[in-house]
Amino acid sequence: MLSTEHLGTLFTNARSHNEWLDKPVTDAQLHQIYDLMKWGPTSANCSPARIVFVRGDAEKEKLVACVSAGNADKTRAAPVTAIIGMDMAFYDKLPQLFPHADARSWFVGNQPMIDATAFRNSSLQGAYFMVATRALGLDCGPMSGFDAEKVNAAFFAGTTVKANFICNIGYGNAEKLFARSPRLAFDEACKIV
Amino acid sequence: MLSTEHLGTLFTNARSHNEWLDKPVTDAQLHQIYDLMKWGPTSANCSPARIVFVRGDAEKEKLVACVSAGNADKTRAAPVTAIIGMDMAFYDKLPQLFPHADARSWFVGNQPMIDATAFRNSSLQGAYFMVATRALGLDCGPMSGFDAEKVNAAFFAGTTVKANFICNIGYGNAEKLFARSPRLAFDEACKIV
Repeated sequence: MLSTEHLGTLFTNARSHNEWLDKPVTDAQLHQIYDLMKWGPTSANCSPARIVFVRGDAEKEKLVACVSAGNADKTRAAPVTAIIGMDMAFYDKLPQLFPHADARSWFVGNQPMIDATAFRNSSLQGAYFMVATRALGLDCGPMSGFDAEKVNAAFFAGTTVKANFICNIGYGNAEKLFARSPRLAFDEACKIV
Repeated sequence: MLSTEHLGTLFTNARSHNEWLDKPVTDAQLHQIYDLMKWGPTSANCSPARIVFVRGDAEKEKLVACVSAGNADKTRAAPVTAIIGMDMAFYDKLPQLFPHADARSWFVGNQPMIDATAFRNSSLQGAYFMVATRALGLDCGPMSGFDAEKVNAAFFAGTTVKANFICNIGYGNAEKLFARSPRLAFDEACKIV
């Protein structure tokens, strides 16, 4: 079991950041994030998430042009913005990822199941991504305020990948945080039967 | 930053379990799981996940009747099976959860945005749920092989909640694990631009 301090790093004290310190995120850190998050469970190990780590100035401006006005400055300022995408042809990797059964055949021709599986599991992986980022001492700022069609055209043209959400990463400026918003109480969100 | 041991607890050594030790999960542990996972980020703090922790024998059998044949025995054997649901009327809680803006009005009347937000964010919260469970020393066995309409009828009738996925929790029997399936390499799933 993790200590209270570490549970704080992951959950209880972790905050979504909007302002970023001028401190870079290295390639090695991006590899570390992926090499943790990839182990999180997905349905039939389908692992549909595909990530573009946007760091270069020109690529960053391409992305900023796709985000809502309220997300532009923070996306520009963040050392890296990750586009969490989902490969809608994820099932073509199942012979590699789930070699002990013909899992590909469970999906081919069933578009509603393909769509739901890609969306659910790339979202799970997006959460693993954020927890892994925090576990490594970095901060996150996830965003869904962007034009997905523009992002798909700018970053995923000619592929089977579509954007799910985007997430700034770096070292947040804790002095710029707002007061924390409340959460639902256990009895509002859960029951035991 | 977490130690290698703790990163192992969350990701690198954590496994989805199919067989369960005969060791109960307490109400206090279920509250601890929720009181961690609730802090994970969601879009506009919308927090759409609703969880039913199924533990009683009669309720367990109601759920087992809804799962695929391959998931029946393990669901029956697990100390608790959590139904991770999503409240499709989550936006009605936004005046409470996001009090500094009229966020409810961003959703009302936009059904595609409601559907995508509920599904994406309850999936994120489902992943926080699994990471929190592991952080507390418990094991998970997530499943999407079940009849969602049957689960909705059995557990969410007369509500605005729909099932997203289900997840066994307890103490897994590590002796019964299969060999671990491979994951995509960094260059297969990610790029840095």
